[in-house]
Amino acid sequence: MTIDPRIQSSFDRQSMMATLGATLLETEDGHAVITAPILPGSRQQQGFAHAALTFAIGDSAAGYAALTLIPATQEVVTAEIKINLLAPAKGDRLIARGRVIKPGRRLIVVTSDVYAETDGTERHVACLTGTMIPVNL
Amino acid sequence: MTIDPRIQSSFDRQSMMATLGATLLETEDGHAVITAPILPGSRQQQGFAHAALTFAIGDSAAGYAALTLIPATQEVVTAEIKINLLAPAKGDRLIARGRVIKPGRRLIVVTSDVYAETDGTERHVACLTGTMIPVNL
Amino acid sequence: MTIDPRIQSSFDRQSMMATLGATLLETEDGHAVITAPILPGSRQQQGFAHAALTFAIGDSAAGYAALTLIPATQEVVTAEIKINLLAPAKGDRLIARGRVIKPGRRLIVVTSDVYAETDGTERHVACLTGTMIPVNL
Amino acid sequence: MTIDPRIQSSFDRQSMMATLGATLLETEDGHAVITAPILPGSRQQQGFAHAALTFAIGDSAAGYAALTLIPATQEVVTAEIKINLLAPAKGDRLIARGRVIKPGRRLIVVTSDVYAETDGTERHVACLTGTMIPVNL
Repeated sequence: MTIDPRIQSSFDRQSMMATLGATLLETEDGHAVITAPILPGSRQQQGFAHAALTFAIGDSAAGYAALTLIPATQEVVTAEIKINLLAPAKGDRLIARGRVIKPGRRLIVVTSDVYAETDGTERHVACLTGTMIPVNL
Repeated sequence: MTIDPRIQSSFDRQSMMATLGATLLETEDGHAVITAPILPGSRQQQGFAHAALTFAIGDSAAGYAALTLIPATQEVVTAEIKINLLAPAKGDRLIARGRVIKPGRRLIVVTSDVYAETDGTERHVACLTGTMIPVNL
Repeated sequence: MTIDPRIQSSFDRQSMMATLGATLLETEDGHAVITAPILPGSRQQQGFAHAALTFAIGDSAAGYAALTLIPATQEVVTAEIKINLLAPAKGDRLIARGRVIKPGRRLIVVTSDVYAETDGTERHVACLTGTMIPVNL
Repeated sequence: MTIDPRIQSSFDRQSMMATLGATLLETEDGHAVITAPILPGSRQQQGFAHAALTFAIGDSAAGYAALTLIPATQEVVTAEIKINLLAPAKGDRLIARGRVIKPGRRLIVVTSDVYAETDGTERHVACLTGTMIPVNL
Protein backbone atom coordinates (compact mmCIF):
# COMPACT_ATOMS: atom_id res chain seq x y z
CA MET A 1 0.00 0.00 0.00
CA THR A 2 1.45 3.29 -1.08
CA ILE A 3 0.46 6.88 -0.32
CA ASP A 4 1.22 9.81 -2.60
CA PRO A 5 3.03 12.43 -0.42
CA ARG A 6 1.09 15.22 -2.12
CA ILE A 7 -2.17 13.66 -1.03
CA GLN A 8 -0.91 12.95 2.49
CA SER A 9 0.10 16.60 2.75
CA SER A 10 -3.36 17.79 1.64
CA PHE A 11 -5.02 15.32 4.02
CA ASP A 12 -2.89 16.58 6.92
CA ARG A 13 -4.03 20.16 6.28
CA GLN A 14 -7.70 19.16 6.73
CA SER A 15 -8.20 19.69 10.44
CA MET A 16 -11.58 17.94 10.21
CA MET A 17 -9.80 14.68 9.42
CA ALA A 18 -7.83 14.93 12.69
CA THR A 19 -10.99 15.85 14.63
CA LEU A 20 -12.65 12.69 13.32
CA GLY A 21 -9.52 10.56 13.84
CA ALA A 22 -9.37 9.68 10.13
CA THR A 23 -6.32 8.13 8.47
CA LEU A 24 -5.33 7.99 4.81
CA LEU A 25 -4.64 4.29 4.12
CA GLU A 26 -3.81 4.12 0.44
CA THR A 27 -3.70 6.08 -2.81
CA GLU A 28 -3.08 4.79 -6.30
CA ASP A 29 -4.11 5.85 -9.79
CA GLY A 30 -7.76 6.77 -9.56
CA HIS A 31 -8.26 5.24 -6.09
CA ALA A 32 -7.98 6.30 -2.46
CA VAL A 33 -8.86 4.64 0.86
CA ILE A 34 -9.59 6.40 4.16
CA THR A 35 -10.54 4.91 7.52
CA ALA A 36 -11.88 6.39 10.74
CA PRO A 37 -12.84 4.95 14.10
CA ILE A 38 -16.35 5.63 15.37
CA LEU A 39 -15.21 7.94 18.15
CA PRO A 40 -17.46 8.76 21.13
CA GLY A 41 -17.80 12.26 19.64
CA SER A 42 -18.80 11.09 16.13
CA ARG A 43 -22.21 9.60 16.85
CA GLN A 44 -25.85 10.17 16.03
CA GLN A 45 -28.74 9.87 18.46
CA GLN A 46 -28.78 6.04 18.48
CA GLY A 47 -25.04 5.70 19.10
CA PHE A 48 -24.10 4.69 15.55
CA ALA A 49 -21.66 6.64 13.39
CA HIS A 50 -23.14 9.99 12.39
CA ALA A 51 -23.91 10.37 8.69
CA ALA A 52 -21.51 13.32 8.70
CA LEU A 53 -18.65 10.94 9.53
CA THR A 54 -19.67 8.57 6.75
CA PHE A 55 -19.97 11.55 4.42
CA ALA A 56 -16.66 13.07 5.53
CA ILE A 57 -14.53 10.05 4.68
CA GLY A 58 -16.63 9.01 1.66
CA ASP A 59 -16.35 12.48 0.10
CA SER A 60 -12.65 12.76 0.92
CA ALA A 61 -11.80 9.31 -0.48
CA ALA A 62 -13.61 10.26 -3.71
CA GLY A 63 -11.83 13.62 -3.86
CA TYR A 64 -8.39 12.13 -3.28
CA ALA A 65 -9.08 9.46 -5.90
CA ALA A 66 -9.58 12.36 -8.32
CA LEU A 67 -6.47 14.14 -7.05
CA THR A 68 -4.29 11.15 -8.05
CA LEU A 69 -5.12 11.91 -11.70
CA ILE A 70 -4.50 15.64 -11.99
CA PRO A 71 -1.37 17.81 -12.29
CA ALA A 72 0.52 18.87 -9.16
CA THR A 73 -0.43 22.50 -9.91
CA GLN A 74 -4.09 21.74 -9.18
CA GLU A 75 -6.28 20.49 -6.41
CA VAL A 76 -9.92 19.41 -6.48
CA VAL A 77 -13.08 20.69 -4.83
CA THR A 78 -16.39 18.90 -4.55
CA ALA A 79 -19.06 20.45 -6.76
CA GLU A 80 -21.79 18.04 -5.69
CA ILE A 81 -22.10 14.64 -4.13
CA LYS A 82 -25.01 12.39 -3.20
CA ILE A 83 -24.97 9.82 -0.45
CA ASN A 84 -27.33 6.85 -0.17
CA LEU A 85 -27.26 5.41 3.33
CA LEU A 86 -27.73 1.63 3.13
CA ALA A 87 -27.54 0.41 6.73
CA PRO A 88 -26.82 1.72 10.24
CA ALA A 89 -23.10 2.46 10.55
CA LYS A 90 -22.32 0.43 13.63
CA GLY A 91 -19.01 -1.25 14.33
CA ASP A 92 -15.42 -0.55 15.22
CA ARG A 93 -14.48 1.69 12.34
CA LEU A 94 -15.54 2.91 8.91
CA ILE A 95 -13.58 2.41 5.69
CA ALA A 96 -14.20 4.51 2.55
CA ARG A 97 -12.95 3.40 -0.84
CA GLY A 98 -13.11 6.09 -3.50
CA ARG A 99 -12.51 5.75 -7.22
CA VAL A 100 -12.77 7.79 -10.38
CA ILE A 101 -15.56 6.81 -12.78
CA LYS A 102 -14.72 9.34 -15.48
CA PRO A 103 -11.73 11.68 -15.49
CA GLY A 104 -11.95 14.95 -17.35
CA ARG A 105 -10.23 18.28 -17.68
CA ARG A 106 -13.21 20.23 -16.36
CA LEU A 107 -15.12 17.64 -14.33
CA ILE A 108 -14.13 14.38 -12.66
CA VAL A 109 -16.97 12.01 -11.81
CA VAL A 110 -16.24 9.93 -8.74
CA THR A 111 -17.82 7.31 -6.54
CA SER A 112 -17.14 5.99 -3.08
CA ASP A 113 -18.33 3.07 -1.00
CA VAL A 114 -18.25 3.15 2.78
CA TYR A 115 -18.13 0.03 4.94
CA ALA A 116 -18.49 -0.48 8.69
CA GLU A 117 -16.08 -3.05 10.08
CA THR A 118 -16.92 -5.16 13.12
CA ASP A 119 -14.44 -7.85 14.23
CA GLY A 120 -12.91 -7.88 10.76
CA THR A 121 -16.23 -8.26 8.92
CA GLU A 122 -17.30 -5.43 6.62
CA ARG A 123 -20.85 -4.25 6.03
CA HIS A 124 -21.68 -1.89 3.17
CA VAL A 125 -23.25 1.19 4.80
CA ALA A 126 -23.20 3.91 2.13
CA CYS A 127 -22.48 4.72 -1.48
CA LEU A 128 -21.71 8.17 -2.86
CA THR A 129 -21.51 9.55 -6.39
CA GLY A 130 -20.28 13.03 -7.12
CA THR A 131 -18.49 15.57 -9.27
CA MET A 132 -15.06 17.01 -8.46
CA ILE A 133 -13.66 20.04 -10.23
CA PRO A 134 -9.94 20.71 -10.65
CA VAL A 135 -8.86 24.20 -9.54
CA ASN A 136 -5.46 25.83 -9.87
CA LEU A 137 -3.46 26.14 -6.66
CA MET B 1 -38.14 31.38 18.21
CA THR B 2 -39.31 28.15 19.74
CA ILE B 3 -37.68 24.75 20.01
CA ASP B 4 -39.62 21.49 20.33
CA PRO B 5 -38.22 19.71 23.46
CA ARG B 6 -38.42 16.36 21.64
CA ILE B 7 -36.12 17.68 18.93
CA GLN B 8 -33.75 19.33 21.40
CA SER B 9 -33.49 16.01 23.22
CA SER B 10 -32.67 14.14 20.00
CA PHE B 11 -30.15 16.82 19.03
CA ASP B 12 -28.45 16.56 22.44
CA ARG B 13 -27.99 12.80 21.97
CA GLN B 14 -26.00 13.37 18.75
CA SER B 15 -22.45 13.64 20.05
CA MET B 16 -21.29 14.79 16.59
CA MET B 17 -23.27 18.01 17.08
CA ALA B 18 -21.32 18.79 20.27
CA THR B 19 -18.01 17.91 18.58
CA LEU B 20 -18.82 20.42 15.83
CA GLY B 21 -20.13 23.02 18.31
CA ALA B 22 -23.54 23.05 16.63
CA THR B 23 -26.64 24.60 18.22
CA LEU B 24 -30.32 24.04 17.45
CA LEU B 25 -31.75 27.54 16.91
CA GLU B 26 -35.38 26.97 15.99
CA THR B 27 -37.98 24.38 15.11
CA GLU B 28 -41.49 24.90 13.84
CA ASP B 29 -43.91 22.97 11.65
CA GLY B 30 -41.85 21.64 8.77
CA HIS B 31 -38.83 23.82 9.52
CA ALA B 32 -35.62 23.66 11.59
CA VAL B 33 -32.56 25.90 11.89
CA ILE B 34 -29.10 24.85 13.11
CA THR B 35 -25.92 26.91 13.39
CA ALA B 36 -22.27 26.02 13.96
CA PRO B 37 -19.08 28.04 14.27
CA ILE B 38 -16.24 27.18 11.92
CA LEU B 39 -14.03 25.74 14.66
CA PRO B 40 -10.27 25.33 14.18
CA GLY B 41 -10.92 21.57 14.01
CA SER B 42 -13.69 21.76 11.36
CA ARG B 43 -11.66 22.90 8.35
CA GLN B 44 -10.56 21.66 4.96
CA GLN B 45 -7.11 22.10 3.44
CA GLN B 46 -7.61 25.78 2.55
CA GLY B 47 -8.88 26.76 5.99
CA PHE B 48 -12.55 27.08 5.04
CA ALA B 49 -15.32 25.05 6.66
CA HIS B 50 -15.04 21.38 5.67
CA ALA B 51 -17.85 20.08 3.47
CA ALA B 52 -18.55 17.57 6.24
CA LEU B 53 -19.52 20.44 8.57
CA THR B 54 -21.78 21.96 5.92
CA PHE B 55 -23.26 18.51 5.32
CA ALA B 56 -23.65 17.76 9.03
CA ILE B 57 -25.80 20.76 9.82
CA GLY B 58 -27.58 20.79 6.45
CA ASP B 59 -28.60 17.14 6.79
CA SER B 60 -29.60 17.56 10.45
CA ALA B 61 -31.69 20.69 9.78
CA ALA B 62 -33.52 18.80 7.03
CA GLY B 63 -34.03 15.77 9.25
CA TYR B 64 -35.36 17.80 12.17
CA ALA B 65 -37.67 19.69 9.82
CA ALA B 66 -39.14 16.27 8.99
CA LEU B 67 -39.27 15.27 12.65
CA THR B 68 -41.57 18.22 13.43
CA LEU B 69 -44.26 16.56 11.31
CA ILE B 70 -44.30 12.96 12.57
CA PRO B 71 -45.75 11.23 15.64
CA ALA B 72 -43.74 11.19 18.89
CA THR B 73 -43.47 7.40 18.55
CA GLN B 74 -41.21 7.78 15.53
CA GLU B 75 -37.93 9.32 14.54
CA VAL B 76 -36.43 9.83 11.09
CA VAL B 77 -33.32 8.55 9.35
CA THR B 78 -31.75 9.91 6.18
CA ALA B 79 -32.21 7.54 3.23
CA GLU B 80 -30.33 9.73 0.79
CA ILE B 81 -29.28 13.32 0.42
CA LYS B 82 -27.41 15.29 -2.20
CA ILE B 83 -25.39 18.40 -1.56
CA ASN B 84 -24.43 21.02 -4.15
CA LEU B 85 -21.62 23.22 -2.89
CA LEU B 86 -22.08 26.74 -4.23
CA ALA B 87 -19.20 28.76 -2.77
CA PRO B 88 -16.31 28.38 -0.31
CA ALA B 89 -17.69 28.23 3.23
CA LYS B 90 -15.66 31.00 4.80
CA GLY B 91 -16.83 33.24 7.60
CA ASP B 92 -17.65 33.26 11.27
CA ARG B 93 -20.31 30.56 11.34
CA LEU B 94 -22.62 28.47 9.20
CA ILE B 95 -26.42 28.50 9.39
CA ALA B 96 -28.57 25.68 7.96
CA ARG B 97 -32.28 26.15 7.31
CA GLY B 98 -34.16 22.93 6.60
CA ARG B 99 -37.72 22.50 5.43
CA VAL B 100 -40.08 19.77 4.29
CA ILE B 101 -40.98 19.81 0.59
CA LYS B 102 -43.38 16.87 0.71
CA PRO B 103 -44.47 15.02 3.84
CA GLY B 104 -45.54 11.40 3.57
CA ARG B 105 -46.20 8.37 5.69
CA ARG B 106 -43.37 6.38 4.10
CA LEU B 107 -41.05 9.07 2.75
CA ILE B 108 -40.51 12.73 3.60
CA VAL B 109 -38.76 14.81 0.94
CA VAL B 110 -36.71 17.62 2.45
CA THR B 111 -34.41 20.44 1.46
CA SER B 112 -31.90 22.58 3.27
CA ASP B 113 -29.92 25.70 2.48
CA VAL B 114 -26.66 26.48 4.22
CA TYR B 115 -25.26 30.00 4.56
CA ALA B 116 -21.88 31.28 5.78
CA GLU B 117 -22.17 34.40 7.90
CA THR B 118 -19.41 37.02 8.02
CA ASP B 119 -19.99 40.19 10.06
CA GLY B 120 -23.75 39.64 9.88
CA THR B 121 -23.82 39.14 6.10
CA GLU B 122 -24.94 35.77 4.80
CA ARG B 123 -23.61 34.01 1.70
CA HIS B 124 -25.39 30.96 0.26
CA VAL B 125 -22.81 28.16 0.30
CA ALA B 126 -24.78 24.92 -0.20
CA CYS B 127 -28.16 23.43 -0.98
CA LEU B 128 -29.25 19.90 -0.13
CA THR B 129 -32.22 17.80 -1.19
CA GLY B 130 -32.97 14.44 0.36
CA THR B 131 -35.33 11.76 1.55
CA MET B 132 -36.05 11.01 5.21
CA ILE B 133 -37.85 7.88 6.35
CA PRO B 134 -39.86 7.65 9.56
CA VAL B 135 -38.92 4.68 11.77
CA ASN B 136 -40.60 3.51 14.95
CA LEU B 137 -38.70 4.19 18.18
CA MET C 1 -44.68 36.26 -21.09
CA THR C 2 -41.64 36.55 -23.32
CA ILE C 3 -39.44 33.96 -24.97
CA ASP C 4 -35.81 34.56 -25.91
CA PRO C 5 -35.49 33.67 -29.64
CA ARG C 6 -32.11 32.01 -28.99
CA ILE C 7 -33.73 29.65 -26.51
CA GLN C 8 -36.72 28.97 -28.75
CA SER C 9 -34.29 28.07 -31.54
CA SER C 10 -32.37 25.65 -29.30
CA PHE C 11 -35.64 24.14 -28.07
CA ASP C 12 -36.83 23.63 -31.64
CA ARG C 13 -33.66 21.69 -32.49
CA GLN C 14 -34.38 19.15 -29.71
CA SER C 15 -36.45 16.55 -31.54
CA MET C 16 -37.29 14.89 -28.22
CA MET C 17 -39.32 17.95 -27.26
CA ALA C 18 -41.50 17.52 -30.36
CA THR C 19 -41.84 13.77 -29.73
CA LEU C 20 -43.15 14.55 -26.25
CA GLY C 21 -45.34 17.43 -27.45
CA ALA C 22 -43.52 19.90 -25.20
CA THR C 23 -43.82 23.69 -25.55
CA LEU C 24 -41.56 26.46 -24.28
CA LEU C 25 -43.87 28.83 -22.39
CA GLU C 26 -41.62 31.50 -20.99
CA THR C 27 -38.01 32.56 -20.47
CA GLU C 28 -36.66 35.43 -18.43
CA ASP C 29 -33.46 36.13 -16.53
CA GLY C 30 -32.62 32.94 -14.69
CA HIS C 31 -36.02 31.33 -15.29
CA ALA C 32 -37.70 29.12 -17.90
CA VAL C 33 -41.08 27.36 -18.10
CA ILE C 34 -41.93 24.32 -20.25
CA THR C 35 -45.19 22.40 -20.50
CA ALA C 36 -46.14 19.06 -22.05
CA PRO C 37 -49.38 17.11 -22.34
CA ILE C 38 -49.42 13.56 -21.00
CA LEU C 39 -49.67 11.95 -24.44
CA PRO C 40 -50.86 8.36 -24.88
CA GLY C 41 -47.25 7.52 -25.77
CA SER C 42 -45.67 9.15 -22.70
CA ARG C 43 -46.96 6.85 -19.97
CA GLN C 44 -45.68 4.37 -17.42
CA GLN C 45 -47.29 1.03 -16.55
CA GLN C 46 -50.11 2.55 -14.46
CA GLY C 47 -51.11 5.10 -17.10
CA PHE C 48 -49.56 8.14 -15.40
CA ALA C 49 -46.89 10.33 -16.98
CA HIS C 50 -43.62 8.42 -17.29
CA ALA C 51 -40.79 9.69 -15.08
CA ALA C 52 -38.84 10.26 -18.30
CA LEU C 53 -41.39 12.89 -19.35
CA THR C 54 -41.19 14.60 -15.97
CA PHE C 55 -37.40 14.43 -16.20
CA ALA C 56 -37.33 15.66 -19.81
CA ILE C 57 -39.15 18.90 -19.16
CA GLY C 58 -37.71 19.41 -15.67
CA ASP C 59 -34.14 19.05 -16.93
CA SER C 60 -34.80 21.24 -19.99
CA ALA C 61 -36.47 24.01 -17.97
CA ALA C 62 -33.46 24.03 -15.64
CA GLY C 63 -31.04 24.07 -18.57
CA TYR C 64 -32.82 26.89 -20.35
CA ALA C 65 -32.97 28.88 -17.11
CA ALA C 66 -29.16 28.64 -17.13
CA LEU C 67 -28.98 29.54 -20.82
CA THR C 68 -30.69 32.88 -20.14
CA LEU C 69 -27.62 33.95 -18.15
CA ILE C 70 -24.72 33.05 -20.45
CA PRO C 71 -23.19 34.65 -23.56
CA ALA C 72 -24.69 33.91 -26.99
CA THR C 73 -21.43 32.16 -27.92
CA GLN C 74 -22.16 29.37 -25.46
CA GLU C 75 -24.76 26.76 -24.72
CA VAL C 76 -25.17 24.55 -21.65
CA VAL C 77 -25.07 20.81 -21.06
CA THR C 78 -26.31 18.94 -18.00
CA ALA C 79 -23.44 17.55 -15.93
CA GLU C 80 -25.70 15.94 -13.34
CA ILE C 81 -29.23 16.24 -12.09
CA LYS C 82 -31.25 14.51 -9.41
CA ILE C 83 -34.99 14.09 -9.43
CA ASN C 84 -37.17 13.40 -6.40
CA LEU C 85 -40.59 12.14 -7.44
CA LEU C 86 -43.20 13.42 -4.98
CA ALA C 87 -46.52 12.10 -6.28
CA PRO C 88 -47.97 10.22 -9.27
CA ALA C 89 -47.94 12.51 -12.33
CA LYS C 90 -51.58 12.23 -13.31
CA GLY C 91 -53.57 14.97 -14.97
CA ASP C 92 -53.96 16.85 -18.22
CA ARG C 93 -50.46 18.20 -18.58
CA LEU C 94 -47.17 18.77 -16.79
CA ILE C 95 -45.55 22.16 -16.19
CA ALA C 96 -41.86 22.55 -15.33
CA ARG C 97 -40.50 25.76 -13.83
CA GLY C 98 -36.71 25.99 -13.81
CA ARG C 99 -34.52 28.59 -12.14
CA VAL C 100 -30.88 29.27 -11.46
CA ILE C 101 -29.76 28.90 -7.85
CA LYS C 102 -26.15 29.96 -8.41
CA PRO C 103 -24.68 31.22 -11.67
CA GLY C 104 -20.99 30.74 -12.34
CA ARG C 105 -18.48 30.84 -15.13
CA ARG C 106 -17.67 27.13 -14.86
CA LEU C 107 -20.78 25.69 -13.21
CA ILE C 108 -24.38 26.83 -12.96
CA VAL C 109 -26.45 25.24 -10.19
CA VAL C 110 -30.11 24.96 -11.12
CA THR C 111 -33.38 23.67 -9.77
CA SER C 112 -36.73 22.84 -11.28
CA ASP C 113 -40.18 22.02 -9.96
CA VAL C 114 -42.65 19.99 -11.98
CA TYR C 115 -46.41 20.18 -11.47
CA ALA C 116 -49.26 18.08 -12.88
CA GLU C 117 -52.29 20.15 -13.80
CA THR C 118 -55.82 18.75 -13.64
CA ASP C 119 -58.75 21.05 -14.43
CA GLY C 120 -56.59 24.08 -13.67
CA THR C 121 -55.35 22.78 -10.31
CA GLU C 122 -51.65 22.09 -9.94
CA ARG C 123 -50.05 19.32 -7.90
CA HIS C 124 -46.33 19.29 -7.15
CA VAL C 125 -45.02 16.01 -8.59
CA ALA C 126 -41.24 16.38 -8.76
CA CYS C 127 -38.27 18.54 -7.82
CA LEU C 128 -34.88 18.46 -9.50
CA THR C 129 -31.51 19.94 -8.58
CA GLY C 130 -28.56 19.85 -10.93
CA THR C 131 -25.42 21.30 -12.41
CA MET C 132 -25.17 22.80 -15.89
CA ILE C 133 -21.87 23.57 -17.58
CA PRO C 134 -21.43 26.27 -20.23
CA VAL C 135 -19.70 25.04 -23.40
CA ASN C 136 -18.57 27.07 -26.38
CA LEU C 137 -20.66 26.68 -29.54
CA MET D 1 -30.44 -14.46 -21.73
CA THR D 2 -33.75 -14.81 -19.99
CA ILE D 3 -36.57 -12.39 -19.38
CA ASP D 4 -39.01 -12.66 -16.49
CA PRO D 5 -42.55 -12.62 -18.05
CA ARG D 6 -43.79 -10.42 -15.21
CA ILE D 7 -41.19 -7.79 -16.07
CA GLN D 8 -41.83 -8.07 -19.80
CA SER D 9 -45.53 -7.49 -19.10
CA SER D 10 -44.83 -4.39 -17.01
CA PHE D 11 -42.42 -3.11 -19.65
CA ASP D 12 -45.04 -3.58 -22.38
CA ARG D 13 -47.52 -1.48 -20.43
CA GLN D 14 -45.13 1.51 -20.42
CA SER D 15 -46.09 3.32 -23.61
CA MET D 16 -43.04 5.55 -23.26
CA MET D 17 -40.82 2.53 -23.91
CA ALA D 18 -42.55 1.94 -27.26
CA THR D 19 -42.36 5.64 -28.13
CA LEU D 20 -38.60 5.52 -27.58
CA GLY D 21 -38.22 2.15 -29.35
CA ALA D 22 -36.78 0.55 -26.22
CA THR D 23 -36.43 -3.22 -25.77
CA LEU D 24 -36.02 -5.30 -22.63
CA LEU D 25 -32.96 -7.48 -23.28
CA GLU D 26 -32.44 -9.42 -20.09
CA THR D 27 -33.54 -9.82 -16.50
CA GLU D 28 -31.99 -11.93 -13.79
CA ASP D 29 -31.75 -11.76 -10.01
CA GLY D 30 -31.00 -8.14 -9.20
CA HIS D 31 -30.14 -7.19 -12.79
CA ALA D 32 -31.91 -5.88 -15.89
CA VAL D 33 -30.73 -4.70 -19.32
CA ILE D 34 -32.62 -2.38 -21.68
CA THR D 35 -31.56 -1.03 -25.07
CA ALA D 36 -32.92 1.71 -27.33
CA PRO D 37 -31.91 3.08 -30.71
CA ILE D 38 -31.21 6.80 -30.94
CA LEU D 39 -34.29 7.52 -33.03
CA PRO D 40 -34.60 10.72 -35.09
CA GLY D 41 -37.21 11.84 -32.56
CA SER D 42 -35.05 11.18 -29.45
CA ARG D 43 -32.39 13.84 -29.90
CA GLN D 44 -31.10 16.99 -28.23
CA GLN D 45 -30.05 20.17 -30.02
CA GLN D 46 -26.69 18.80 -31.21
CA GLY D 47 -28.16 15.60 -32.65
CA PHE D 48 -26.99 13.28 -29.87
CA ALA D 49 -29.34 11.18 -27.74
CA HIS D 50 -31.42 13.41 -25.47
CA ALA D 51 -30.66 13.06 -21.77
CA ALA D 52 -34.31 12.05 -21.34
CA LEU D 53 -33.65 8.92 -23.42
CA THR D 54 -30.58 8.07 -21.38
CA PHE D 55 -32.60 8.70 -18.22
CA ALA D 56 -35.60 6.72 -19.45
CA ILE D 57 -33.73 3.47 -20.02
CA GLY D 58 -31.29 3.98 -17.12
CA ASP D 59 -34.13 4.53 -14.64
CA SER D 60 -36.17 1.64 -16.07
CA ALA D 61 -33.25 -0.80 -16.00
CA ALA D 62 -32.64 0.11 -12.37
CA GLY D 63 -36.33 -0.25 -11.53
CA TYR D 64 -36.65 -3.63 -13.21
CA ALA D 65 -33.47 -4.84 -11.49
CA ALA D 66 -35.32 -4.07 -8.23
CA LEU D 67 -38.51 -5.75 -9.47
CA THR D 68 -36.66 -9.07 -9.91
CA LEU D 69 -36.23 -9.23 -6.14
CA ILE D 70 -39.71 -8.47 -4.81
CA PRO D 71 -42.93 -10.50 -4.46
CA ALA D 72 -45.32 -10.77 -7.43
CA THR D 73 -47.90 -8.85 -5.40
CA GLN D 74 -45.79 -5.70 -5.60
CA GLU D 75 -44.28 -3.37 -8.13
CA VAL D 76 -41.72 -0.61 -7.66
CA VAL D 77 -41.77 3.14 -8.15
CA THR D 78 -38.79 5.47 -8.31
CA ALA D 79 -38.53 7.68 -5.23
CA GLU D 80 -35.43 9.51 -6.44
CA ILE D 81 -32.62 9.01 -8.89
CA LYS D 82 -29.57 11.02 -9.87
CA ILE D 83 -27.89 10.90 -13.23
CA ASN D 84 -24.31 11.95 -13.97
CA LEU D 85 -23.77 12.46 -17.68
CA LEU D 86 -20.23 11.41 -18.58
CA ALA D 87 -19.96 11.93 -22.34
CA PRO D 88 -22.14 12.88 -25.32
CA ALA D 89 -24.50 10.00 -26.13
CA LYS D 90 -23.68 9.54 -29.80
CA GLY D 91 -23.81 6.25 -31.64
CA ASP D 92 -26.20 3.64 -32.96
CA ARG D 93 -27.98 2.74 -29.76
CA LEU D 94 -27.89 3.05 -25.99
CA ILE D 95 -27.68 0.14 -23.55
CA ALA D 96 -28.61 0.45 -19.87
CA ARG D 97 -27.51 -2.10 -17.31
CA GLY D 98 -29.24 -1.81 -13.95
CA ARG D 99 -28.47 -3.63 -10.73
CA VAL D 100 -29.52 -3.65 -7.10
CA ILE D 101 -26.94 -2.32 -4.64
CA LYS D 102 -28.99 -2.96 -1.51
CA PRO D 103 -32.36 -4.71 -1.37
CA GLY D 104 -34.74 -3.90 1.44
CA ARG D 105 -38.33 -4.29 2.44
CA ARG D 106 -39.00 -0.54 2.42
CA LEU D 107 -36.30 0.82 0.11
CA ILE D 108 -34.22 -0.74 -2.66
CA VAL D 109 -31.06 1.14 -3.60
CA VAL D 110 -30.17 0.69 -7.26
CA THR D 111 -27.63 1.79 -9.82
CA SER D 112 -27.47 1.81 -13.58
CA ASP D 113 -24.81 2.43 -16.18
CA VAL D 114 -25.67 3.58 -19.68
CA TYR D 115 -23.44 3.00 -22.70
CA ALA D 116 -23.59 4.32 -26.26
CA GLU D 117 -22.68 1.69 -28.84
CA THR D 118 -21.07 2.60 -32.15
CA ASP D 119 -20.06 -0.21 -34.53
CA GLY D 120 -20.00 -2.66 -31.64
CA THR D 121 -17.84 -0.48 -29.37
CA GLU D 122 -19.37 0.78 -26.14
CA ARG D 123 -18.72 4.13 -24.50
CA HIS D 124 -19.82 4.85 -20.92
CA VAL D 125 -22.16 7.86 -21.16
CA ALA D 126 -24.03 7.98 -17.86
CA CYS D 127 -24.32 6.52 -14.38
CA LEU D 128 -27.41 6.68 -12.19
CA THR D 129 -27.98 5.91 -8.51
CA GLY D 130 -31.44 5.88 -7.00
CA THR D 131 -34.01 4.59 -4.56
CA MET D 132 -36.95 2.37 -5.54
CA ILE D 133 -39.87 1.71 -3.22
CA PRO D 134 -42.01 -1.43 -3.38
CA VAL D 135 -45.75 -0.73 -3.52
CA ASN D 136 -48.62 -3.20 -3.38
CA LEU D 137 -50.43 -3.83 -6.66
